[in-house]
Amino acid sequence: MPERVTFTPARAEDVPAILALLTDDPLGAGREHGDDLAPYLAAFEAIDGDPGELLMVGRRDGRVVATFQLSFVPGLSRGGATRAQIEAVRVHADERGDGVGADLMAWAEQEARRRGCALLQLTSDASRQDAHRFYERLGYAPSHVGFKKLLG
Amino acid sequence: MPERVTFTPARAEDVPAILALLTDDPLGAGREHGDDLAPYLAAFEAIDGDPGELLMVGRRDGRVVATFQLSFVPGLSRGGATRAQIEAVRVHADERGDGVGADLMAWAEQEARRRGCALLQLTSDASRQDAHRFYERLGYAPSHVGFKKLLG
Repeated sequence: MPERVTFTPARAEDVPAILALLTDDPLGAGREHGDDLAPYLAAFEAIDGDPGELLMVGRRDGRVVATFQLSFVPGLSRGGATRAQIEAVRVHADERGDGVGADLMAWAEQEARRRGCALLQLTSDASRQDAHRFYERLGYAPSHVGFKKLLG
Repeated sequence: MPERVTFTPARAEDVPAILALLTDDPLGAGREHGDDLAPYLAAFEAIDGDPGELLMVGRRDGRVVATFQLSFVPGLSRGGATRAQIEAVRVHADERGDGVGADLMAWAEQEARRRGCALLQLTSDASRQDAHRFYERLGYAPSHVGFKKLLG
């Protein structure tokens, strides 16, 4: 049996490993430019200094094998509910299929409940059909359309 | 010609008017409980104290006729891009059809650009077909599926 993955807040020295996970992805490959770490480290500092943001890594045998970001968004809707939002969920290709993704989502849900969030939300590119089935199995309803506009 | 709507950050005294806009909506009607303002005022304080959140009202002739919330989310993806997210967009039923919604979205986009955001994103309930056409006309691509799980 492989060791279970443990989830902890990311540190600056994890940024290259997180970037490798973001890049090793059919959609992410064209969007990242890992030859210059500086903008990624600046973004890490912005996330790390924001109490409403939590960038996480999952480790197995000391190696970063998963990542995700949780954002806590206060709002007036739904009785003044805070919502949790999960972005940039990635599990290393070699580590899929033995429950790492489900453990990751369970960790996120527990943290969202601990912070009193009324709901957990995420968007997933329409092309990621396997991911959609995964989220539906975990009780997520595909109730919304996600729109994006690049400001370039 | 009616006066143009002007957009300004919401103040605590605008909360009842914002709540009225959230409630006067086919989906929002069942979700809000306006007889007790306290949780909404507490949520307003949380938003107001968070530099990454901007709750806005649109006023015409001194009256609140529109509202939306902009969130600025730092992230590692897309070269360490900050993304802007718009939630809880509402325009008073009597004020639709003369460009208030388009003015609102233009304001949000300008503010997102001013803060250096690489993209503006939103989700819209699958049932809001008119809203989807509106967002598509403004250049938003319906590229994602939005999933939600109530934590109740």
